[in-house]
Amino acid sequence: MMNNSSLTSFFDPHNIAVMGASNNPLKAGYVITNNLLKIKYPKKIFPINRKEDNILGLPAYNTLSEIEDSIEMLILITPSSVIEPVMQDLEKRMQEKGDIKAIVCAAAGYAELDTPEGKHRQKVLTDTAKKYNIRVIGPNCIGVVDNEKRVDTTFVETLTPEENRGIAGGISFISQSGALAASVLMRGASLLSPMKFNKFVSIGNMSDVDFIELLEHFEDDESTRVIGMYMEGYPEGRKLIDTMGCIASKKPIVVLKVGRSEKGATAASSHTGSLAGEDKIYDSAFRQYGIIRVNSIDEMIDTLRAFDQLSLPQGNKFFLTSQAGGPGIFCMDTMSNENIFETPMISEETKKKLKELLPPMANVCSPEGYNDISASANVEQHVEGIRILFNGPEVEGGFLISVLTPFIPQDELGDEIVKLCNDNKNKPLFVVIMSGNVVDKARTIVEEAGIPTFETPDRAVKAAANLIRYSEFKKLNK
Amino acid sequence: MMNNSSLTSFFDPHNIAVMGASNNPLKAGYVITNNLLKIKYPKKIFPINRKEDNILGLPAYNTLSEIEDSIEMLILITPSSVIEPVMQDLEKRMQEKGDIKAIVCAAAGYAELDTPEGKHRQKVLTDTAKKYNIRVIGPNCIGVVDNEKRVDTTFVETLTPEENRGIAGGISFISQSGALAASVLMRGASLLSPMKFNKFVSIGNMSDVDFIELLEHFEDDESTRVIGMYMEGYPEGRKLIDTMGCIASKKPIVVLKVGRSEKGATAASSHTGSLAGEDKIYDSAFRQYGIIRVNSIDEMIDTLRAFDQLSLPQGNKFFLTSQAGGPGIFCMDTMSNENIFETPMISEETKKKLKELLPPMANVCSPEGYNDISASANVEQHVEGIRILFNGPEVEGGFLISVLTPFIPQDELGDEIVKLCNDNKNKPLFVVIMSGNVVDKARTIVEEAGIPTFETPDRAVKAAANLIRYSEFKKLNK
Repeated sequence: MMNNSSLTSFFDPHNIAVMGASNNPLKAGYVITNNLLKIKYPKKIFPINRKEDNILGLPAYNTLSEIEDSIEMLILITPSSVIEPVMQDLEKRMQEKGDIKAIVCAAAGYAELDTPEGKHRQKVLTDTAKKYNIRVIGPNCIGVVDNEKRVDTTFVETLTPEENRGIAGGISFISQSGALAASVLMRGASLLSPMKFNKFVSIGNMSDVDFIELLEHFEDDESTRVIGMYMEGYPEGRKLIDTMGCIASKKPIVVLKVGRSEKGATAASSHTGSLAGEDKIYDSAFRQYGIIRVNSIDEMIDTLRAFDQLSLPQGNKFFLTSQAGGPGIFCMDTMSNENIFETPMISEETKKKLKELLPPMANVCSPEGYNDISASANVEQHVEGIRILFNGPEVEGGFLISVLTPFIPQDELGDEIVKLCNDNKNKPLFVVIMSGNVVDKARTIVEEAGIPTFETPDRAVKAAANLIRYSEFKKLNK
Repeated sequence: MMNNSSLTSFFDPHNIAVMGASNNPLKAGYVITNNLLKIKYPKKIFPINRKEDNILGLPAYNTLSEIEDSIEMLILITPSSVIEPVMQDLEKRMQEKGDIKAIVCAAAGYAELDTPEGKHRQKVLTDTAKKYNIRVIGPNCIGVVDNEKRVDTTFVETLTPEENRGIAGGISFISQSGALAASVLMRGASLLSPMKFNKFVSIGNMSDVDFIELLEHFEDDESTRVIGMYMEGYPEGRKLIDTMGCIASKKPIVVLKVGRSEKGATAASSHTGSLAGEDKIYDSAFRQYGIIRVNSIDEMIDTLRAFDQLSLPQGNKFFLTSQAGGPGIFCMDTMSNENIFETPMISEETKKKLKELLPPMANVCSPEGYNDISASANVEQHVEGIRILFNGPEVEGGFLISVLTPFIPQDELGDEIVKLCNDNKNKPLFVVIMSGNVVDKARTIVEEAGIPTFETPDRAVKAAANLIRYSEFKKLNK
C-alpha cells in the first residue's frame, strides 16, 4: 500500500541538500553528510557550504538556489543566527523550481531558548516553509532515519555495522528528546545483534510535524509493526491519547513517558512546556487504550524487540525452564511481581515424559509451571522439554534460562534454540542466556536468527509481561 | 591484622591438590587446574589423576597419599560415586601427614539429590573431614576465589583479563547458588573495567562451612569493605539475621534474597530446603538492621561497586546535572520513586555563578536541585558546575548524566571527571555516560581511575539510594 501522507518526503526523498555540510569531523554538518554516505542513500546528496568546493568527495554548492537537479528534502544545520538569509535562498529556489517538500532542521537555537529572538527565528523558518507547503521536522532535533529507504539525516555517530545498515526491522520510534533518541540509537547499535529500526524520528520543537501526524503515518506504514515513543508532554493531550488509542487497537505502542513525579513534571515543563499533574491522566488513558507504558530505557528496548521479533502470546500461561537454580527462583519472583502470569497445569502424562527426558537431578513441575533441568542438562535437555510442553495446549509461552557452563557447546545450543523457536512460532520463548561475554556466541546465533535474547531473567519477564498485557487488551477489544 | 578463623586455609592455602584434575578441556577438573595456573597461584599445585602422568604441564599423581610435599587444601572434582575410595586415600594421608585443613568439594551428586545414596555420600565426606578437623566448602558448589592470595578453585571460565587477575577490590561475595555465582563472576568480568572481587565463595550444600561462619570471616577481613550475598534460605534464620545485623553495623551487606513470592519460595524450598512464608520476616529484619536488599542482579553489581569505590554520602541531598534533557527528567522521576532523596536548596549567589559558567540555553536549578547544562555544554561546563556545588555545604552527592555527542573529546571529559571526583572524595558522584559502545573510551578512563560508571540513570539512582539508606542507618545507630 502506498502511504499518501505528506510525510513521505521525509522517509523517501528524491535527492537531499545539506545546508551547513562540512569537512570538519567535529561539526554536525560533517556527521550528517557522512551518515548519508555510510547508509548508502541511493539518490543524490548536495552539500552546501560557502567556503568549500568539495565536501566528503561530493561537489559543494554556495547556495540552494543554484543547484540544477531537483531536491525533495533540505537538511538545515547552519547556525540559527543565519536563518533569515537561508530562508531567502530557499524562497528564491521555491519561486524558480518549487521542488522542496521537506525540511529537517537539526540546528538548535530556536523557540526552545524561550527568548524573543529564538521564537522569531522559528517563526521565520515555519512561515517560509508554510508559504511553499514545505513540511518541517524540528528545529532542535537529531533528525530522521529510514533504514528501508536508506535515509539518515542524524548527526549521531553511526555505530551500526556496515552489513546492517539499510536493513529495516519493524520498530519505528518517535522521540521528544534528541539526547534520548541519540542514546537509544547508539545503545541499540551496540547490542550483540544491532537493533534494526524501521523509521526513527527525533521531533525536537515540533514547530510543524508533531506526534499525532507521525503516529498516523506509522499507523499506515505497513513495514512498521510496533511504535516506540519517548514523550514529555503535548499541548493537546486528549487528542494525542485518542490518536494513540486508535492506533494501539491495530499496532502496539510502547511509550516511555516522563514526568511521573512532581519534580520530573516541572523539569519536563521547562523542557517542553507540558503541564504538571497531567501524568495521572496519561497513565490511566494508556491503561484503558492498551498502550504499553515502560519505566526504563532497557525495558523500552527489550519490549520493542519482543513485539517486533516474537509473536503475540495467545494467553498468559508461561512455563519457566531453568538450567540454573538461583536464577530460576529469581525469575519466578519477578514473574509473580508482574501480577499477570498464570501457572500452566501440566498433565501427569506430560510430566512423565519430562522426567524421562531430563537428568535425574532435575526438578519437574516443582512448583507447577517450573522445570529446574539442573546444571547437568545437555543441549537436548535444554530444548526438548520445552518442545514437549509447547506441543500441548496448556502452555502459551515460555522462558528458558541457562548459565552456560564451559561444557555446553554454544553453537549447538544456539542452533537448537533457533529450531525450537522456528517450530513453535505461535508460542513465544523468551531466551535468557547468562552471563557476560562468555555466552556471546550462543546469544549471537539466536539473535542473528531474528530471536531476541535477554541479559537477565527480570528483563525477559518485563518484556513478556508487556506482550501479554497487549494480547489481553486485544482479546477484550476484538 | 591476622585473621585467625579456621577458614583462612580456604583463602591462603599452602599448596593445593586437585583430585580429578584433567587434560580434557571439557572437564571441570581441567578448568579448575587451568584457573589456578591462570591466576598464578604462587605455591604448588598437585593434580591427581590415575591415568595421566602430566596435567597441564604439571606432574600428576595417582593418589593423595603419595604426594611428598605438604598440602593445605584439597579440591574434589571426582564423581560423587567414588567418594568412599577418595576418603580412604584421604584417611591414609591424614594418618601419615595430617596436613590438610580445607576441602572444596565442587562435585555434585550429594545431599542435594535428596536420595538416600546422595545423603550417604555427603555423610562419608563430612564424617571423614570432621574426624581430622578438616573444614569443607560444598559439595555442589563452584568453589572459592581469593584475588589477593591468587587462589581460584572454580570451574567458571575465567574471563578476567590477565592484567586484572590477582587484583583484589573490596567486594567479597557469598552465593547459595552456583549458577548465580558463575553468572555474577562472568558478568562482572565482562564489564568495561572488570569487577575486582576480593573473595568469592559458592557455598553449595553447606555441609560444613555456611553463611554465618563466612560472614564472620569477612567481618574480620580487613580488605573486605562490602559483603554481597545471594541467598535462598537458611535453617537457622534468627541466628543468621543476628549475625548479619551485627556485621552490618560495621560493613555494608548487600543481599539478593529470592523467595519473595509464594512460587519462588516453593522453588527455593525444593532447591535448598528453606521455608515459605519466611521472606517477610527476613525483609523486615533486613530493614531493621541496615542490611541492603536488592531486587536484581544488575542492582546487586551496581550497588556493590558503589559501596566499594565511592565514599558513603553524608546525607541525602543529591544534585542532578544533566547534559541531556530527556534522560535528566527520566532520572528525576526515578529519584523521586526511591523516596529517599532530598532536594538541595542552592543559594542565589551560587546560582549566579552557575549561570555565568553554563551555556545560555542551560536551565539552572529549574526545578531546584537540577541543572540541565544543555547539549551544547563543553567539558568544562560538564564538570565545573558540579565542583562549584560540591564546594558548598548544601550538596552531599550528585549525578552527572551525559549523552556524548561526537563533538566532545572523550579523553578530556574522562580525565576531568576523574579530577573532579578525586578532589571531592567525600561527596560521591554517580556518573552516567550514555550510550552504547561509542562512549566506552570516556567510561573506561573513569572506571580505570577506580570510579564506577553506570549504563542508565535508573541504575545509578538505585545504587545511590542504597548508599544513602546505609548511611542513614549508620547515623541512627551510632
